[in-house]
Amino acid sequence: MPGHAPAPLCTFSEPETPVTRTLTTEICIIGAGPAGLLLSQMLAQEGISSIVVDRQTRTHIEARIRAGVLEQGTVDALVEAGAGARMMAEGLPHSGFDLAFDGDRHRIDLAGLTGKTVMVYGQTEVTKDLFAQRVADGQTFLFGVDDVVPTDLKERRPVVHLRHEGRSVRIECDYIAGCDGFRGVSRKAIPADVLRTFERVYPFGWLGVLTERPPVSHELIYANHERGFALCSMRSATRSRYYIQCDLSDDVDDWSDDRFWKELCRRIGPETAAELQTGPSFEKSIAPLRSFVAEPMRYGNLFLVGDAAHIVPPTGAKGLNLAVGDVRVLARGLVRRYRSGETDLIDRYSEIALARVWKAERFSWQLSMLMHQFPEHSPFEKKMQRAEFEYIRQSEAASRSMAENYVGLPLEM
Amino acid sequence: MPGHAPAPLCTFSEPETPVTRTLTTEICIIGAGPAGLLLSQMLAQEGISSIVVDRQTRTHIEARIRAGVLEQGTVDALVEAGAGARMMAEGLPHSGFDLAFDGDRHRIDLAGLTGKTVMVYGQTEVTKDLFAQRVADGQTFLFGVDDVVPTDLKERRPVVHLRHEGRSVRIECDYIAGCDGFRGVSRKAIPADVLRTFERVYPFGWLGVLTERPPVSHELIYANHERGFALCSMRSATRSRYYIQCDLSDDVDDWSDDRFWKELCRRIGPETAAELQTGPSFEKSIAPLRSFVAEPMRYGNLFLVGDAAHIVPPTGAKGLNLAVGDVRVLARGLVRRYRSGETDLIDRYSEIALARVWKAERFSWQLSMLMHQFPEHSPFEKKMQRAEFEYIRQSEAASRSMAENYVGLPLEM
Repeated sequence: MPGHAPAPLCTFSEPETPVTRTLTTEICIIGAGPAGLLLSQMLAQEGISSIVVDRQTRTHIEARIRAGVLEQGTVDALVEAGAGARMMAEGLPHSGFDLAFDGDRHRIDLAGLTGKTVMVYGQTEVTKDLFAQRVADGQTFLFGVDDVVPTDLKERRPVVHLRHEGRSVRIECDYIAGCDGFRGVSRKAIPADVLRTFERVYPFGWLGVLTERPPVSHELIYANHERGFALCSMRSATRSRYYIQCDLSDDVDDWSDDRFWKELCRRIGPETAAELQTGPSFEKSIAPLRSFVAEPMRYGNLFLVGDAAHIVPPTGAKGLNLAVGDVRVLARGLVRRYRSGETDLIDRYSEIALARVWKAERFSWQLSMLMHQFPEHSPFEKKMQRAEFEYIRQSEAASRSMAENYVGLPLEM
Repeated sequence: MPGHAPAPLCTFSEPETPVTRTLTTEICIIGAGPAGLLLSQMLAQEGISSIVVDRQTRTHIEARIRAGVLEQGTVDALVEAGAGARMMAEGLPHSGFDLAFDGDRHRIDLAGLTGKTVMVYGQTEVTKDLFAQRVADGQTFLFGVDDVVPTDLKERRPVVHLRHEGRSVRIECDYIAGCDGFRGVSRKAIPADVLRTFERVYPFGWLGVLTERPPVSHELIYANHERGFALCSMRSATRSRYYIQCDLSDDVDDWSDDRFWKELCRRIGPETAAELQTGPSFEKSIAPLRSFVAEPMRYGNLFLVGDAAHIVPPTGAKGLNLAVGDVRVLARGLVRRYRSGETDLIDRYSEIALARVWKAERFSWQLSMLMHQFPEHSPFEKKMQRAEFEYIRQSEAASRSMAENYVGLPLEM
C-alpha cells in the first residue's frame, strides 16, 4: 500500500501472559486471617460463594501470635457463625480489669458498669477454629499466592490477578474484600488521590513474653509506672502473656528472661510482684505501636476490612474486635445485596464502619496516652495522667465510660 | 581594749525602718479579690479576726472583668456566707450548655445528668456583693498598699510588712492567707526549693467582647470550628459575653467590632449566627490561656489560696470556683483550729485542696484540648477531637462525666 511504513526487518510476538486458569466467585477475599475467614463463613451461611487467597500457608497463619481479648459482639459473631464451641468451652470470661499507677490499683468493673463482659481467648485459637470450620465446609482457598493485584475495581466484575503454584490465576468476582492487613496489597490498589490517611506512631514499643505459668492475677492489669507501661495478660489459666514498654531501638536479645521479669516486677509494684510466677519464655518479641486510619474504606467494588484500613495500638485490645465489627457490617450489607438486590447497606459500609473505627481509635489512643511514659511529656502532662487516673478512680461516670469502650461500643452507635 | 579594730573616721547610723504602726490580727489576708473577701467573711462569721490588704483600691478591684459561671458549691458558699441575696435574685440558673463542632450541637444536660445546675453571675458582681457586706460589717481593709512582704512564715507569729499611706506597717498574725493571684507576692515568699511548679502555656489567646445585647442562646455554647474556638456566654438576660480564639500576637485594635462579629458568626455556624444580636462592644480584651499549679499550697503559716497557687484556662470556668473551694477548705480548717485548737484540718489543707485542684486542672485542660484549634496538631489529632465530640454526643457516661466536672466535683472527692 503506498505511503505505509516499511515493514520492520523482523518481528517479535509479545510474550503473552499465560492465563492458564480463570476462577469465578461472588466474593474474592484477600487474606486468610480471622477477618477473611469469618467473612467467608458468614457469607457461606447465607449461600454466598467466596474464594479466599493468602500469601502464606495455613500453618504459617495459624502460628501467628496476636492479642486475645474479645468483646461480647465478637464473641456473639463467632458463636452465630458456628465457630464458638471451643471458645465457649476454653475461653476465660472476664468481668473486669485493673488500672494501676505506681502500684495503686483501681478495678474497672465491666459487668457492674455495663452489664457486659469480655472473653480472653487468643486470636491464634480463633483463627484455628475458623480454619477448621471453613476447611470442613469445603471453602476454596488458594495459599502461598504471589503477585496479587486487584484490578477493574470500578467495573461490574472486578478481577484479582495472582500467581499460584507457578500458574497465573485470574479470579473474576462481584466484590473484593481486602482482609490482608496493614501491609497488604488491597489498600495500595486504591488510587492515592482517593485515600486520605491519618497516622500516629508512638515513640516506644511493647516487649511481649509468653510463658507456661498461671497468670499473676485472674484479670488483666494495665500498669503505668515512672519506668514505663506494663501489662499482665494471659492466654489461659496456665499460660501468661506479659508486656513492658521498651525503646524501639531495643533488641529482643538484650532482654534475657531474667532482665524481663525484674523489670516487670518493678513496674507492677511489690504487692503484685509477690504473686508473680515467672518461668522460661517461649515467645519474646518487640512490636511497635501505631494508630492509623485510611478513608474511605470502599473504592468501587473493593472493600477494606480490619487492619487493611486501620491500625490501633494494642492498649485496650481493639484490633481484632474492630476487624470483626467491619466483617459484621460488610456481611450484613452483602447478604442484603444478594437477597434483595439492594445496595444501600454496602453503599454505607465505609460510613458505618468508620464511625465505629474512629471511636475505637480514640479509645485506644486515649488509653495509650494515659498508661505509657512519653519522653516528650512535660511535668504538667505527667501530672495530667495521674489526675486522670485519680479521677477515673473516684468517678463512676468516668469508670463507666472506660468500661463501655473496653467491652465495645454498639456496632452502630 | 587592746587589739580591737581602730575606730572609723566617722560613723553613720543605719537609717532605721520607720515602723510607725503595728497591727495585730488572727489572719492577715493578702488580696481583696473574691477569695480574700469571702475568706474574711467566713472567718468573721465565726468570730475570727482578719485584716485584708490589697495593692489596688476598692474601685479598681470592683471594675475587673472576669468570668461568671458559678458551681453549686460556690453558690452555696456565697449564700451561707450571707452574700447570696442579689445573686439569687439576678443570677441566671443554667441547667445545661452546648458543645458545637463545625456547627453540629450537642447539649450537656447538667440537671438531667447530675441533678445539679450552675449559676451565671459575673465575678464582678460577686466581688461587689462581698465588698458591700464586708464594709458594712466593719472589716479592716488596707487598700493601695505597696512593698508587701510576708516574713517569719515558719515562726509562731508571722508578719506581713507593707507600706500604706506613706507609712511602714507591720501586721502580726497567726496565719497569712495569700489570696493575691498569680502575680502576687505570697507565692514568691515561699523558698524556690520548697515549691514545685507545673505549667502549660497554650499557643493562642481569647479575644473577649462585652455587649449590651441579649445572648444568642439562653445557655452557653462552646464551639470548635476549623477557624478556631468560640464561646457564646452572658452576664445577664440583656448583656452578652462572646469570645473567639485568636493569635497571641494579635492586637485588640486589629479587631473592629465588625470583624469580631463576622468571625464569631463563621465559627458558630449559620443557624446559631442567624439568632445573634450584635451591638457595640463596651469591653474588648485579649487574655492568654495558662495551666499552672504550685505545690504545696502551704508553707509554714502561709496558705496559698486560688490563683496564687493555680491557674486554669478559662474553658469550663473553673478559676473562681477553685478559689472558692480553697477558701471553704481553709476556712473550715481555721475554724476548727480556733474552736478546738486542733490543727489537723489546716495541716491537711494543701493535700485536700490539691486533690480537687488537679482534677479541675485536668478538666480545664481536657476541655481546652477538645475545643480549640492547635497549630501543632496533626491530622490524626484533629480527627481525635472530632471522635471525642462524637463519642460524648452518643454516650451517656461520657456526657455525665463532662457534666459532673462542669457543675463541680465534690469538695473532697
